[in-house]
Amino acid sequence: MENLKRAKGLEVRQACRLGDLTGPTPGLAMGYVQANLVIVPQEHAFDFLLFCQRNPRPCPLLDVTQPGDPEPREVAPGSDLRADLPAYRVWRNGELVDEPTNIGALWRDDLVSFVIGCSFTFENALLEERLPVRHIEQGVNVPMYRTNRPCRAAGRFRGPLVVSMRPMSPRQAVVAQRVCARFPRAHGTPIHFGDPSAIGIANIARPDFGDPVEIRKGEAPVFWACGVTPQAALMEAKIPFAITHKPGHMFLTDLRDADLEGE
Amino acid sequence: MENLKRAKGLEVRQACRLGDLTGPTPGLAMGYVQANLVIVPQEHAFDFLLFCQRNPRPCPLLDVTQPGDPEPREVAPGSDLRADLPAYRVWRNGELVDEPTNIGALWRDDLVSFVIGCSFTFENALLEERLPVRHIEQGVNVPMYRTNRPCRAAGRFRGPLVVSMRPMSPRQAVVAQRVCARFPRAHGTPIHFGDPSAIGIANIARPDFGDPVEIRKGEAPVFWACGVTPQAALMEAKIPFAITHKPGHMFLTDLRDADLEGE
Repeated sequence: MENLKRAKGLEVRQACRLGDLTGPTPGLAMGYVQANLVIVPQEHAFDFLLFCQRNPRPCPLLDVTQPGDPEPREVAPGSDLRADLPAYRVWRNGELVDEPTNIGALWRDDLVSFVIGCSFTFENALLEERLPVRHIEQGVNVPMYRTNRPCRAAGRFRGPLVVSMRPMSPRQAVVAQRVCARFPRAHGTPIHFGDPSAIGIANIARPDFGDPVEIRKGEAPVFWACGVTPQAALMEAKIPFAITHKPGHMFLTDLRDADLEGE
Repeated sequence: MENLKRAKGLEVRQACRLGDLTGPTPGLAMGYVQANLVIVPQEHAFDFLLFCQRNPRPCPLLDVTQPGDPEPREVAPGSDLRADLPAYRVWRNGELVDEPTNIGALWRDDLVSFVIGCSFTFENALLEERLPVRHIEQGVNVPMYRTNRPCRAAGRFRGPLVVSMRPMSPRQAVVAQRVCARFPRAHGTPIHFGDPSAIGIANIARPDFGDPVEIRKGEAPVFWACGVTPQAALMEAKIPFAITHKPGHMFLTDLRDADLEGE
């Protein structure tokens, strides 16, 4: 595992493919872009693509495959989305039914895969600027919250914007704004700073997903659009069949974090 | 017509709907966002949406409708894409077959409409900065060229990037770069400045679409990704049925040019 921290994205994918890596990916192949994965049948692919297009902050698309093609050619040529992630989640009618480490047996010719940008990219950039990323300091999952802001719906896909939170001082939040503006394809700038109730969060100590983190004196919560948003929309749509990555068990691309800067 | 220059987007749409306006829209409802229109059957909508998503510079999506819905609710609530443009083009198997002023009789429950940003938005901003927009000065259509740069394909949709050209001095081009950076949803910054052959243009005096314009001493051609690109891809795909706006006869939205600034 220590080797995988300084590995290339390709090497992490190979470790997954061989069954050597089935655990979470934060900290692996540092500098390579990690991504969320959503796989839906072709029948629902237009609506899901439209959902992403209408909600680019939570759903920044990095690659979309043709139906049946398991290779995201833009971000990781030669890769195989059926085997190259450490773990997956299988959904039937909106219910989680399995968490396999390989989805070859579930593959179908009509499956369309969506590779979606992830907060790890801007967290690396925040750390480089010596800004605090509290959940990494505390060794827990990032706290995530459902907000009262609805996403723009597309067909059956709808639901609230889900946000992640990192506590910062106002001055640090200003720097974070500048850093994250470089990464529109990794959720971009924060969508809110301060009062959680202004975006419908009743209790900051009780995240809807992930773990609570300490907010220190002089800090306020800073909120970013989160890649769990499309998963929440997927669950609510209750489509018969879908596959996603297991949270924290991301797809390693060949892109470098710097590749996501700009348009 | 003079009234329509200072009209709202809605008023231009109403003039179209009543059959009072069947001519081109440049200069009408100044300050309101004008848009390209592409309509394809649902069967091809995923691939076309993916083509736009993969080629955001030439195909900046402003709105996409649900199948059968003629109302682009995000950019012009209450509008009707079947009647609210001055003129349309009807395509069968990649061939232009008709140029009607209303497509109500052709409408089908499976048609998906794509409203795509247009260069008029950044041209207004260029004019405000007193930068030259030569084809407007000369009262002709903007010159457009096929380049040797392929678009990223999506299913049957593929083809070269088509660019529009406006001559400027190097100093003006730098200002234009800054101005257009504000409008990623209206083709964004120029993609090339100078030598046309570097992007596969053999003869700058012979545009593939539109009219040639004068390039003065001290000026060089400046090239922008162009909204004709998706139409060219549509023609090459030779899908059985599609509808677009007639060139220069755009859809007037309720958005203001400033609404397209930023993400």
